[in-house]
Amino acid sequence: MQNTVSALLFDVFGTVVDWRSSINREIELLGGKNGFTIDWNQFSNDWRAGYKPAMDRVRRGELPWMNIDGLHRLILDQLLVKYKLTHISEGDKKHLNKAWHRLAPWDDSVEGLTKLKQKYIIGTLSNGNISLLVNMAKSAKLPWDCILSAELFGCYKPDRRTYEGGAELLGLPKDRVMLVAAHKDDLDSAMKYGLKTAFIPRPHEYSEKTDITFEKKYDFNANSFLDLFDQLTNS
Amino acid sequence: MQNTVSALLFDVFGTVVDWRSSINREIELLGGKNGFTIDWNQFSNDWRAGYKPAMDRVRRGELPWMNIDGLHRLILDQLLVKYKLTHISEGDKKHLNKAWHRLAPWDDSVEGLTKLKQKYIIGTLSNGNISLLVNMAKSAKLPWDCILSAELFGCYKPDRRTYEGGAELLGLPKDRVMLVAAHKDDLDSAMKYGLKTAFIPRPHEYSEKTDITFEKKYDFNANSFLDLFDQLTNS
Repeated sequence: MQNTVSALLFDVFGTVVDWRSSINREIELLGGKNGFTIDWNQFSNDWRAGYKPAMDRVRRGELPWMNIDGLHRLILDQLLVKYKLTHISEGDKKHLNKAWHRLAPWDDSVEGLTKLKQKYIIGTLSNGNISLLVNMAKSAKLPWDCILSAELFGCYKPDRRTYEGGAELLGLPKDRVMLVAAHKDDLDSAMKYGLKTAFIPRPHEYSEKTDITFEKKYDFNANSFLDLFDQLTNS
Repeated sequence: MQNTVSALLFDVFGTVVDWRSSINREIELLGGKNGFTIDWNQFSNDWRAGYKPAMDRVRRGELPWMNIDGLHRLILDQLLVKYKLTHISEGDKKHLNKAWHRLAPWDDSVEGLTKLKQKYIIGTLSNGNISLLVNMAKSAKLPWDCILSAELFGCYKPDRRTYEGGAELLGLPKDRVMLVAAHKDDLDSAMKYGLKTAFIPRPHEYSEKTDITFEKKYDFNANSFLDLFDQLTNS
């Protein structure tokens, strides 16, 4: 199977980068600067939890098309009310919203991607917008061959147009493209629309317990990008 | 000025890669395999010369939207008639059409881009399609941060949507984005729509003499990407 795959497309938030620790740190820094203390971890979880419902509102047409920077800001403004932090400056709010452009990679991400890049086209297939993904790649040194985003298709994963559009832009049949993700719903959609799949559990993405069980239905299950590289090259 | 520029977007065919020598070599190889001899250079020039008229037909709506692979094939099929080479196999035709995915960089391109990447976001802004640009980057080792293409906007340069769309996807004001190109018509359009401009003459792009005069109206005029890097960092 592995010999027919030419391109690996990666989910990003949670799969390649550790949003929770990164956002915790950014809010803590802002708290230090502005003299407030809150439960950083709860704030990060709340921000992330607002993400899917916000995309669903776009999907249902309740919100016009808006990129993730826009959706993150919408959710942030609500959280600042909840946490009684609306007094922080507009500059600080903008900086905090861009924390998602500065997320840190998991320990294996850069080394794993660098190895995978030797044998495959590696790219993003993320709901994050292009500028977010480009800035993140610069700061986290992620060596993408190409940056593909839901923004290019005007719809968010799990819309089939994102998976099919990714393969189409790469000029490849869908079964020569593999989605690599830490989230089973994303992989299940990719599989449904004809892409190959690799599951990489990220047990520390959320503070609560998450489903990290390997599943036979995926083409690959690996504990890290390095493990995925070994499995791809040895099988 | 240079401190306000955050991203450099590059025209590709002729500016980053030497299409003429590369296509010459590919046709010569194919001639060797199939036992024919033609004027390689004339064939390459004819193929390239068909490119703008073909894009113009798309622009005028005479052809439906078609990516550059499609337009290259359309022109190639006409040339194969002209040069009496229609008998070569479909596999050979497909391989030849993809020669544009395998173009070789100019001598300064990889080193220059690698240096520029340390200080700026570097990306393509090409009429070539995404898969062509991704495959070319892999084979020529072009270290792009992102690959932007007319294909993403459904219209070709010099349509204003390509220049403005490039800046928008990067989340940057237009005057923080600079087009780097060997072609004055491209630069003039970029300037008209608010981008900064850098002219890099490529005197060997065409076999005939081309206009390589520096122009004050451009923000930068440089003899290579390395020269551009020096000018940007020293000014």
